[in-house]
Amino acid sequence: MKHPTPPFEYSIGIDVGGTSTKIGLVDREGLLRDRLSLDSQATTDARIYAAALAELVQTMIGTHGVAGKIQGIGIGAPGVDEREGVMAAANMPFSEPVPLAKWMEDATGLPSRLIKDSSAAIIGERAFGGAKGMDHFVLLTLGTGLGSALMVHGQVIGGANGLASEYGHSPAVPNGRQCNCGKKGCLETYVSATGLKRTVFELLASMKMESPLRNKSFHHLDARMIFDAAELQDPVALEAFRYTGTILGRAIAGLIVLLDPQAVFLAGGLIHAGPRLFDPVRESIEEHLLPMFQGSCPILPSQLGADDTGILGAAAILWDNPKS
Amino acid sequence: MKHPTPPFEYSIGIDVGGTSTKIGLVDREGLLRDRLSLDSQATTDARIYAAALAELVQTMIGTHGVAGKIQGIGIGAPGVDEREGVMAAANMPFSEPVPLAKWMEDATGLPSRLIKDSSAAIIGERAFGGAKGMDHFVLLTLGTGLGSALMVHGQVIGGANGLASEYGHSPAVPNGRQCNCGKKGCLETYVSATGLKRTVFELLASMKMESPLRNKSFHHLDARMIFDAAELQDPVALEAFRYTGTILGRAIAGLIVLLDPQAVFLAGGLIHAGPRLFDPVRESIEEHLLPMFQGSCPILPSQLGADDTGILGAAAILWDNPKS
Repeated sequence: MKHPTPPFEYSIGIDVGGTSTKIGLVDREGLLRDRLSLDSQATTDARIYAAALAELVQTMIGTHGVAGKIQGIGIGAPGVDEREGVMAAANMPFSEPVPLAKWMEDATGLPSRLIKDSSAAIIGERAFGGAKGMDHFVLLTLGTGLGSALMVHGQVIGGANGLASEYGHSPAVPNGRQCNCGKKGCLETYVSATGLKRTVFELLASMKMESPLRNKSFHHLDARMIFDAAELQDPVALEAFRYTGTILGRAIAGLIVLLDPQAVFLAGGLIHAGPRLFDPVRESIEEHLLPMFQGSCPILPSQLGADDTGILGAAAILWDNPKS
Repeated sequence: MKHPTPPFEYSIGIDVGGTSTKIGLVDREGLLRDRLSLDSQATTDARIYAAALAELVQTMIGTHGVAGKIQGIGIGAPGVDEREGVMAAANMPFSEPVPLAKWMEDATGLPSRLIKDSSAAIIGERAFGGAKGMDHFVLLTLGTGLGSALMVHGQVIGGANGLASEYGHSPAVPNGRQCNCGKKGCLETYVSATGLKRTVFELLASMKMESPLRNKSFHHLDARMIFDAAELQDPVALEAFRYTGTILGRAIAGLIVLLDPQAVFLAGGLIHAGPRLFDPVRESIEEHLLPMFQGSCPILPSQLGADDTGILGAAAILWDNPKS
């Protein structure tokens, strides 16, 4: 198979998620020129899923007349074993591990790479976002769960078994909330959209103030409603953000003393809360951080659009580390 | 200045501590051929301290007839700024930062390097200890305080500002014990010789059982006495080790999910407690660790003699990364 020599003008980024798979045409400046989306749950046959993806990629390339100008296809996905080159995510409908990069390469003739979605996100932040020129930094993604990625000496930390960067499952609260993983007190049971909702329910029990959130069932409540309540100065919603920020700040203080990063970036839906989240995070860091580190490490919002982070990061993979 | 070309047969390792400074002649197998010691507090004049050190090094080289066979002088010390090449430790009697490697090089003509004691320890564990051939591992040293060092992709993690690996100051217990650093709940206020003593005092208050430790004042009690009491099945001492191991295990679970290391090594005086410490550590890891990591990372005692770790690690610096 003939692989093009870098650098090419465009790259294809594929962001695999449990609900939808997003495909983007990205240029070297990190501009998203086009995007398409595929239902991730439409088929349980991984071959059909991959063929449909390849079809969309070919369509996108044809529409924009950029055949021959594509660096390759970068794929960020959950549950990836980077050493085996397969995706085996619990939230995807496939029963077997899927060698998605190999199949995309076979179908399109373009060099393809499959990495963990968290790795794609940190590579994207460095290629196109706020971490340009940084070799030591951390990215935490506050979505349904808590994703994490570390870059040290300019390399993503993969770990001895390719399992690194599961900081969402670091023990944050002794004997704390039950986690999906079967353990208790994991950071993501507090610091994530789901964690925020759980905090609201704790506060609805412990506080007495009236709140519009008292009209929502657990299944009905979502982060957006908590944002909206906070906008209206609802004391429960405000306290929920404060508490979330405090727990997150304490965890970040632990990362800073361990890794001494240039910056910690926060990404994901929850960062739309802005100062309601960032202020208590910074206060909590101040409260918990070894004094000699004070002021050494800014806490910054990701500079990639929350919706496009996955696509941009995936597209950056092949530029970051071209496949030979 | 003429620097010898590696590899030479011997290296000088200097382990700077607040009480004494140890100097060793080490061969390439990691055998300590000779050792001398200097009182670290004897003078407040760093020039005199350095001159005395250089004198001892020359004496050692002369005695063994190994002039011309020395790779160089490696120095591990507390409070080192590796980028500036100076030592500014709070527990040393000098008022100014000390460029100790430069002074030793000037005085002896041997290439010299000054690094943090924690970095020397991890390099030594890899050169001569249990981490031979490992590129991803963690070393925690349980002494008066808690030292930490990380190796990732075969490199010691120094951080963006040379401040990394202060895991002893990661927040371990919300609103916990006061730390020397001015913060509360730092890991080393629980997991260290001092932390063990503090735990004993907490238990003497909360438990009712008779214990020989009830005859000791806080200033008089030391880790050795707690070891001895545990040997005699004293319930307070046994519970103190169990509690220490539980907190340490929880912290190690956080390191494992973050870094996915090949192993975590424990060093320092407290590891003489053996299974009394290691068993609760392993149980606590089991309790707190994300299931997919279970069994991935052994917790091992350092394979360097506790007393010589610092010398051996310092001696290994120049072999690990020869100075040009």
